Amino acid sequence: MEVILALKATPLFREVPGEGLKRLSDFIQEKNVTSGEIIFDENDLGDEMYFVHRGRVTVRKTIGGESMDVETVEGGGHFGEWAIIDDRPRAATAIACEATNLLVLHKNDFRSAVQDYPDIAFEIFRELTTRLRDIDQRYRELIAEARRLGIETR
Amino acid sequence: MEVILALKATPLFREVPGEGLKRLSDFIQEKNVTSGEIIFDENDLGDEMYFVHRGRVTVRKTIGGESMDVETVEGGGHFGEWAIIDDRPRAATAIACEATNLLVLHKNDFRSAVQDYPDIAFEIFRELTTRLRDIDQRYRELIAEARRLGIETR
Repeated sequence: MEVILALKATPLFREVPGEGLKRLSDFIQEKNVTSGEIIFDENDLGDEMYFVHRGRVTVRKTIGGESMDVETVEGGGHFGEWAIIDDRPRAATAIACEATNLLVLHKNDFRSAVQDYPDIAFEIFRELTTRLRDIDQRYRELIAEARRLGIETR
Repeated sequence: MEVILALKATPLFREVPGEGLKRLSDFIQEKNVTSGEIIFDENDLGDEMYFVHRGRVTVRKTIGGESMDVETVEGGGHFGEWAIIDDRPRAATAIACEATNLLVLHKNDFRSAVQDYPDIAFEIFRELTTRLRDIDQRYRELIAEARRLGIETR
């Protein structure tokens, strides 16, 4: 029952009716991680996505040889969906910032969930598009800055 | 019938059965544009996405005050889906490079298509994720380069 309530609090599943959440909850595994624990590493292969039920997770990337925190995911948020969408290695490392309770959804169950409740797809479209616009904007600003300084960019 | 064949040749609709393509084709408008014609402008509002049936379209963005071609879309390809996903202004300008035959799908019909054929969602997920990884990678390389040169980045 607690898993159903946790799923209900997850914006991604906003439009999924009670019956669907109940069904989804059968596929969900709970996982507890301690502060500082690595959930997955950049370049790992992975076939699961994660929802933060309680706690906080940092997403960290190696940029220019340095490790940079790029996002913090809190209760209700999710991470790790890129790898299950395109079957490529993890683009970042995920680390628990504190004791964290995660809900874990396997690729195949994610697929079933989207097939049964296509509204989930629109939430994911919107998130991916927002992220694309954001990084596109930052990339363009950086290119503009580089040009002002006479640096060659492609 | 020709619209159905054009849809069939579009990877996005790969998994949609014949009956579904027939139904989709009822919603599709054809549009012919001449070489150099602007299909939409950066910052326009828009509620349609486009498939290139025959011809070629350039996607162009203003980067650092300069206009840059970022993508060329050919037969079977599509563009303009960001704005119909998140209802925000167009992120780029689309211009026909030659006489081009387009298929136009309205936001609401796109939504119905995804609801009826969730496999379309997985194709779009995969495309958006691939694009995210690609721009993320380029952004990271540029940040690394800027750092080597002692330029402040955020």
